[in-house]
Amino acid sequence: MKSGLMSPRSINATTLARLLGGPPRSRPYYAAIAAGVRGLVLDGRLPLRTRLPAERDLAVILGVSRTTVTSAYDALREEGYVESRQGAGSWTALPSGAPSAARHGLAEDRTLIDLACVSPAVPSVFEECVAAAVAELPRHTSGPGYEPLGLAGLRAAVAARYTARGAPTVPEQVLVTTGAQNALCLVLQAFTRPGDAVLVESPTYPHALDGLRRAGARLVPAGVNAGWDPELLTGGLRQSAARLAYVIPEFQNPTGRLMDDTTRAALVATARDTGAYMVTDETFTELAVDDVTRPRPLAAHDTDGRVISIGSAAKVLWGGLRIGWIRAGQALVRRLAEERETVDLASPVLEQLIVTELLGRMEEITAERRSMLRERRTALVEALREDCPGWEFEIPPGGLSLWARLPGVSSTALAAAGARHGVHLVPGTAFGVDGVLDDHLRVPYVLPPDRLREATARLALAQRDADTAGLSRPAYV
Amino acid sequence: MKSGLMSPRSINATTLARLLGGPPRSRPYYAAIAAGVRGLVLDGRLPLRTRLPAERDLAVILGVSRTTVTSAYDALREEGYVESRQGAGSWTALPSGAPSAARHGLAEDRTLIDLACVSPAVPSVFEECVAAAVAELPRHTSGPGYEPLGLAGLRAAVAARYTARGAPTVPEQVLVTTGAQNALCLVLQAFTRPGDAVLVESPTYPHALDGLRRAGARLVPAGVNAGWDPELLTGGLRQSAARLAYVIPEFQNPTGRLMDDTTRAALVATARDTGAYMVTDETFTELAVDDVTRPRPLAAHDTDGRVISIGSAAKVLWGGLRIGWIRAGQALVRRLAEERETVDLASPVLEQLIVTELLGRMEEITAERRSMLRERRTALVEALREDCPGWEFEIPPGGLSLWARLPGVSSTALAAAGARHGVHLVPGTAFGVDGVLDDHLRVPYVLPPDRLREATARLALAQRDADTAGLSRPAYV
Repeated sequence: MKSGLMSPRSINATTLARLLGGPPRSRPYYAAIAAGVRGLVLDGRLPLRTRLPAERDLAVILGVSRTTVTSAYDALREEGYVESRQGAGSWTALPSGAPSAARHGLAEDRTLIDLACVSPAVPSVFEECVAAAVAELPRHTSGPGYEPLGLAGLRAAVAARYTARGAPTVPEQVLVTTGAQNALCLVLQAFTRPGDAVLVESPTYPHALDGLRRAGARLVPAGVNAGWDPELLTGGLRQSAARLAYVIPEFQNPTGRLMDDTTRAALVATARDTGAYMVTDETFTELAVDDVTRPRPLAAHDTDGRVISIGSAAKVLWGGLRIGWIRAGQALVRRLAEERETVDLASPVLEQLIVTELLGRMEEITAERRSMLRERRTALVEALREDCPGWEFEIPPGGLSLWARLPGVSSTALAAAGARHGVHLVPGTAFGVDGVLDDHLRVPYVLPPDRLREATARLALAQRDADTAGLSRPAYV
Repeated sequence: MKSGLMSPRSINATTLARLLGGPPRSRPYYAAIAAGVRGLVLDGRLPLRTRLPAERDLAVILGVSRTTVTSAYDALREEGYVESRQGAGSWTALPSGAPSAARHGLAEDRTLIDLACVSPAVPSVFEECVAAAVAELPRHTSGPGYEPLGLAGLRAAVAARYTARGAPTVPEQVLVTTGAQNALCLVLQAFTRPGDAVLVESPTYPHALDGLRRAGARLVPAGVNAGWDPELLTGGLRQSAARLAYVIPEFQNPTGRLMDDTTRAALVATARDTGAYMVTDETFTELAVDDVTRPRPLAAHDTDGRVISIGSAAKVLWGGLRIGWIRAGQALVRRLAEERETVDLASPVLEQLIVTELLGRMEEITAERRSMLRERRTALVEALREDCPGWEFEIPPGGLSLWARLPGVSSTALAAAGARHGVHLVPGTAFGVDGVLDDHLRVPYVLPPDRLREATARLALAQRDADTAGLSRPAYV
């Protein structure tokens, strides 16, 4: 049987050899090659289902025997990082149950510390709100249960929060979606065609990059490691003739930074000028940790309906809810509601009722989140300074993570070593375009303080291993 | 401001004139043209956001004055069926709040009878199951809430039902999705490229056609008005070199038919032979109304992993739940779980717990559904025979609707007339490809008997109006 799934990607021997950093330097060679490929798969530089070069070709380029490459592929196959089929070649894969680099994996193994995940558990009012929503549910169950635009109460509650934040909004401007990722998909489906330029921050949210790549967007990164540079951003918009810009102005993922009002105004004005649309991801908006002055939402700067705001219950309420929303012009909201019919028809009713209840308790919830995150952020900062001296980071005013620059160690190598020490990491490269940011690591402060202290101890061990393995050849640890 | 949404479609004056059936024959001409365009929009032959020809061009082709076309466009704009922007032209649209032909619209107006909707209200054990799921929820809320493959308990429950139906299945073969439409999207994303031929039944589920069109599939219809013809189907598979076939073998939507075992075997064998994949939509599987012998699922005929089964809670449990699933080979399930990360990450946890509880009560639920649907089907059949003599239909063994052939009246015209009499209909054309099936109407028996009797009375009135308006020129009522 031939493979049913499309395998649109393949990598030739020359490119793979370059990514591997050239011929293997440690013995046994086959193990070094296997480790290199594994590293490339785990950090996402070799996408899943990429067809690997023929063994003979790779052997020639790497200057090793064909048997060495065969053994490397065999080892990878045994571990589950490669799948092969007679006559059809070999593809990259993930072992069943292995955490995908870009996945919010649930730790199957209790002892694993998951630093890939940036989703806190439920707030303490959660059960109460579920009960209230369940009590409300019978008012909705006599009908078919489809509301393509979302429940009226939730749309009103979301609109009210925008209004309170300084962007006056009516419920008709809100479309309820099945999470923020679903919202982004809808927007991309409506706005982009393959080949369109889309400006993104670098670093940015990995799943947004996935969605944009899937939509065939040409990614135009604008560096924000040191914060947003208005000139860089507006210049990027102009020069790339970007159709769309995707930004996270509030407690940016992963940097935790907050975009100032001047930059917001400049961005929207430039977008208006160039005809670009702005997608602003506000998933982290309600996660202020410090008492900072909050600029008005990007939408408040909008004068002609080109700012599309995406929000979500996932981070401040709970990831298991899968409810998000889009705030845009009324006509656009109606059109997106039509588009969604080909995607998922409508969002679950009970989940919407629960989120409506939770939004009614947001002051309590954000206060609780703030004090919890403040404690955990402090714990992480202290533990990291002690266990991992040399890691550079700023303390962000909000969000769920630090964005650390590593002292001469590759985050890909660190992630591979971390897996052996029971700490699950997403390498910095996942947050960027074209394999950059390997010198950075996102370190979330979502877990309780004792787990965070254990995590930094493991990070220190992983760093020692990764260091020993040779800094300059990340794929060959 | 230029329009942000892509307007990939446009229709030229010649084609529009043809769809309108040539020059208007009733006066005032502008009203006849407006009514024609409105009909084409409502029945989906003119997709939304199709750019209309310039007024001058249409006037020339229809042999009317430009003022007439301008007045027609003005009337449509006023009603909300057309939107225009200075310098950018005019597009088809739907009035805000108008029921889209293909949408499961919730009736805003209490007096409207919605015969577009085929989703029953919740079963009587629903509240109990919600309570049990809520009690279970705290076991899941201490984590981040993301399970890309679905909750283990739900995967096991779904697998067990397949096994019971004659297709032995392990939980690892089940991927939980956010509804059946989401499942279909995932499968199409993984399996089809624009231009691929996909065999579909005609008639079939309108949203599946939407999803396939969105994926750029070349639709190859196989007529099933009179049931499945194995030769027609297998011949269609062979001749079209279809990449995929999408079928609804169990209480087919809209015909309610049940595919026999021989046809199933022949279909899967041919697919194996031609290399096609079979997507079988089993959304209606648990909705037997009569005590019929149930053939084994299509998956039971599969020997090499080419049957992908899609199921859903929407029809037998409740549409407001938005939980579906895919049953396929283990490797494919893992890959689709990776694909989903660009779409929606995971499905809502509480919804999954509720569906798990409900699946544990399926014998009760299906028995209740069966007796309810039997009563309603009888009521509809009797009322329809009395109020609408001449409508031809078979009584289907299951599902939620009759599929009636209309006696010389266009279902598009009937839908337009129905709207005036307070009954919301989906014209037969929505179930087919290229505007066929205008002589058919799906009549669901989901509503209570008294509502169904009121509905057929209104259908009779609508039919009288549609008849009077001229049978042969459906778009010009």
